Amino acid sequence: MLSELRKDPVINRWVITMDDKQFTPQKESMLPANLPEKDPACPFCEGNEDKAGKLLYESKDRAGKWRIRVVPNNNPYLKVETQLKRKGVSMYDTISGTGANEVIIESSRHDMDLDGFEKEHVRDLFKAYKDRILDLKNDTRLEYILIYRNRGFKAGAQNLHPHSELMAMPVVPKRVQEEMEAASEYHKFKQRCVYCDLIENEVSEKERIVKETEHFVAIVPFASMTPFEMWIIPRRHQAHYHCIDDRQTADLAYIMKECISRLNRALNRSSYNFMIHTSPVKDPEHRHYHWHIEILPRIKSIAGFEWSSGFYINHTPPEEAAGYLRKL
Amino acid sequence: MLSELRKDPVINRWVITMDDKQFTPQKESMLPANLPEKDPACPFCEGNEDKAGKLLYESKDRAGKWRIRVVPNNNPYLKVETQLKRKGVSMYDTISGTGANEVIIESSRHDMDLDGFEKEHVRDLFKAYKDRILDLKNDTRLEYILIYRNRGFKAGAQNLHPHSELMAMPVVPKRVQEEMEAASEYHKFKQRCVYCDLIENEVSEKERIVKETEHFVAIVPFASMTPFEMWIIPRRHQAHYHCIDDRQTADLAYIMKECISRLNRALNRSSYNFMIHTSPVKDPEHRHYHWHIEILPRIKSIAGFEWSSGFYINHTPPEEAAGYLRKL
Repeated sequence: MLSELRKDPVINRWVITMDDKQFTPQKESMLPANLPEKDPACPFCEGNEDKAGKLLYESKDRAGKWRIRVVPNNNPYLKVETQLKRKGVSMYDTISGTGANEVIIESSRHDMDLDGFEKEHVRDLFKAYKDRILDLKNDTRLEYILIYRNRGFKAGAQNLHPHSELMAMPVVPKRVQEEMEAASEYHKFKQRCVYCDLIENEVSEKERIVKETEHFVAIVPFASMTPFEMWIIPRRHQAHYHCIDDRQTADLAYIMKECISRLNRALNRSSYNFMIHTSPVKDPEHRHYHWHIEILPRIKSIAGFEWSSGFYINHTPPEEAAGYLRKL
Repeated sequence: MLSELRKDPVINRWVITMDDKQFTPQKESMLPANLPEKDPACPFCEGNEDKAGKLLYESKDRAGKWRIRVVPNNNPYLKVETQLKRKGVSMYDTISGTGANEVIIESSRHDMDLDGFEKEHVRDLFKAYKDRILDLKNDTRLEYILIYRNRGFKAGAQNLHPHSELMAMPVVPKRVQEEMEAASEYHKFKQRCVYCDLIENEVSEKERIVKETEHFVAIVPFASMTPFEMWIIPRRHQAHYHCIDDRQTADLAYIMKECISRLNRALNRSSYNFMIHTSPVKDPEHRHYHWHIEILPRIKSIAGFEWSSGFYINHTPPEEAAGYLRKL
């Protein structure tokens, strides 16, 4: 079986890409088939609102029933009440655990995923992300607000009730920093944004496109870390997710629902993560950085090779994965 | 529960560190209790040598029986027979899958881990790593030779027979590159090696030491990614693992056996990875880089937070983990 090394167009990450017809997603990655509509033990289910913690944000449907609620993580990793303190300890560097760690409960129902939501419901979820960022960015101690979703136990979810998480931090994450720096290098060299180039390239080549809408393009990236990885990128150059307008939000809801629905059908409802890659909250509207969403199926183990190299092995050619997802 | 952000002393990786007494390692991380001494289906077991592939290297015990064998991976990700070709494909960069992917079968027995081997056996394993690197480095197409070990299914092992893997690559891994660059920055600023400083600091502070020997120091790192992470660092400044001498090799065998034995007792034989961090094969004997081994227990999921930030959450203070391991 011939393999090829492919470099991520932004960061210095190579992926060994091959066409391994024997590859199958790990069975333990699949979500249980029959989740109950309501789980009496689940703090995120309708009727258990008092167990979920203090309400920070709510979004209701036309009938006035809540459909999205944001609460603090009941065992937060970082807290706003902590005084920010940066301190050297012998040769090391520390920062107090200042920040915020919130849970975005995406539905009152336990058994749903985004592809089962109404489009307006997904739109309200993306609006909730934006509104929480806009609120938290007033706290000038915070440098970065990270939004991510763990779906399924293999993706690190503790609870299968549909939810996302928010972590607001006093430092810019390593992964974001390296993406920002690499995109800045590209811009210095070419005087163009690498993501704008990427969109132009993919729309013209077509073979890695999953879906195109007025405002977004969904692709399987050229150097996918895992089979069926997807990126959703806004066509308009925009450094910050929180600058998204209402028309973009509605369109993003549509393309995200499409992508998750196709992913769930392609991989039999396997575990996945998604995360919003956006600029640090205090940064200006960079010409070199372009926010986007990365969807990562969690159907393979991360072994010593991945840990020690920072490289990945992808058993399905991105062009084939995209072709399959496009036709679904 | 109060948390603290701790920065890795070398790279720009912060870890949220806390003291969570509720934390328990994932049960699925534990290895099965009763592995057979021989598994008829295992290509690495004694008697199945013909199924393991072409012998590249062998090491025997005093009685003349093999105890370590190196063979090519039967489904290699990279191959030496491929012609090296770097090529641009539209806006992207590719390299042919040139390299080597070998399996180091560590024992003829199926049911052992390093802590059950005789000391001379572990020494021969470290010698096998060195000899394979020295052989492969003659191939000037290869830029890096990575050695790592996957123990247990949660660590990505496909087979529980004790084995390590070697991946020789035409490019320096991202993870290595960033460690080299950060260590070089530190050296420019301080005119000292960060790992030499680290040893001095840890030996004087004592609280994160697991074991000290004549040639090595084993610590729980200040910004551990996971509970019970350990690093084994040579006291002598040395950029390349393959420059290790016989006395160091024997001493490394002893400290590694100690560390794995303590880890196995502390975590009930949970899955773990270890990997050798060393300089790229063609590099000179850098003053700023210092090879070492990192041992990473795989007792937690990697969720969206870790993926999107490159940061980690560690539920056990490194000082507490080190104290526990030290006393075992």
